[in-house]
Amino acid sequence: MPEKDNLIIGRNPVREALRSGQPIDTVYVSAGANLGEIRELAREAGAVVKTVNEQKLSQLAQGGVHQGVVALGACAKYASLEDLLEVSAKKGTKPFLIICDEIEDPHNLGAIIRTAETAGADGVIIPKRRSAMLSPTVYKTSAGAASYLPVARVPNIGAAIDRLKKEGIWIYGTDMNGSLYTETDFDGALALVIGSEGTGMSRLVREKCDFLVKLPMLGKITSLNASVAAGIFMYEVVRQRG
Amino acid sequence: MPEKDNLIIGRNPVREALRSGQPIDTVYVSAGANLGEIRELAREAGAVVKTVNEQKLSQLAQGGVHQGVVALGACAKYASLEDLLEVSAKKGTKPFLIICDEIEDPHNLGAIIRTAETAGADGVIIPKRRSAMLSPTVYKTSAGAASYLPVARVPNIGAAIDRLKKEGIWIYGTDMNGSLYTETDFDGALALVIGSEGTGMSRLVREKCDFLVKLPMLGKITSLNASVAAGIFMYEVVRQRG
Repeated sequence: MPEKDNLIIGRNPVREALRSGQPIDTVYVSAGANLGEIRELAREAGAVVKTVNEQKLSQLAQGGVHQGVVALGACAKYASLEDLLEVSAKKGTKPFLIICDEIEDPHNLGAIIRTAETAGADGVIIPKRRSAMLSPTVYKTSAGAASYLPVARVPNIGAAIDRLKKEGIWIYGTDMNGSLYTETDFDGALALVIGSEGTGMSRLVREKCDFLVKLPMLGKITSLNASVAAGIFMYEVVRQRG
Repeated sequence: MPEKDNLIIGRNPVREALRSGQPIDTVYVSAGANLGEIRELAREAGAVVKTVNEQKLSQLAQGGVHQGVVALGACAKYASLEDLLEVSAKKGTKPFLIICDEIEDPHNLGAIIRTAETAGADGVIIPKRRSAMLSPTVYKTSAGAASYLPVARVPNIGAAIDRLKKEGIWIYGTDMNGSLYTETDFDGALALVIGSEGTGMSRLVREKCDFLVKLPMLGKITSLNASVAAGIFMYEVVRQRG
């Protein structure tokens, strides 16, 4: 369920929000409504468009007069993958990107964005589906870092990885069967994939990784909170790069 | 406000829970009630006893017949500071303890306990007041680590630090004005203090630290989520100890 404090309800409010360039995450459109212009504006703005039934729309609008459309604002504008690639080029540093493979908990995504910002990463990549988005909770948990660090939302993580590889970026995945992270060289151009809280990386994404790395697990518990694990890996990159 | 799914309401249920050795966090007793026996049992069990008015008790009991007493169960038994000191003695390793100085968010405390367990720490120390306790949320966020790793609850963090110092344990606090953590030697017997989410370590605790350490902050944001920072420091100890 989307968070409620960033809803835009009704045709005119949604149209104006899209035209003014206000960051919009998702536009929910009634299956029956004739809203071709709003659909087009939403696509141009990079928002996800979802066609839903009247009952779902009424639920989302919480009693507001929705006229067939409800939009969900984002706490910051999404960047493109190309924007992220330009960051290191401008800084004159080696690329350092974080890929969140279906991180669904907004607290985890917010904490990862916060740590990526303090660790000097270039940006964070998230998928359009099955992921927390740039919601007010993510913004708050990021301690404002979502305003400073670009977050790119891509239709497909696998295709994004292929694009990064063409730029000579090495892909590091986190996996229990990987090499010890402290014995792995993080000194080159790299993207670090953080798997989802429940199931880790998807099979397809794992197969695209150039390296699999793991943390030593010295107790009985076999995994860490996703944002804590991400933080430890990111700061190992910082340590190795000096 | 305490979480609701671990309430024990009324004289007999609370008395039996205390007698049976069930882990109890806090016993709330009515100011007017004659409950000397329950107060005594609670103290023996190491529970915090709080005297409250009828209105507060009724709120806590949520309509249950409280007869002047409501107790809050814990997800695991609390250990003592001496128990924690015995862990490394038994393992034949150098002491490695985590002190949470007023971590109030149960998700943070749970994640810290989880990481402490995977990093091979001996246990976690929390204060009796102004701290998240071993609640169901902490248990869940710890991924069960709260069952394996001893957590000691102490009346006073400063006094606990003095006790640790008598055992030759060095106290490391995390602070923006400290030395870079990767340039600090973590190889000895040590306790790592994690400051609260809002204000960091208290002045008194900071003054008792032998070393102050910090993470490099390479962006605009000046602090990390408490459990992420704790994870990075703990795994630097693991790395240095090899």
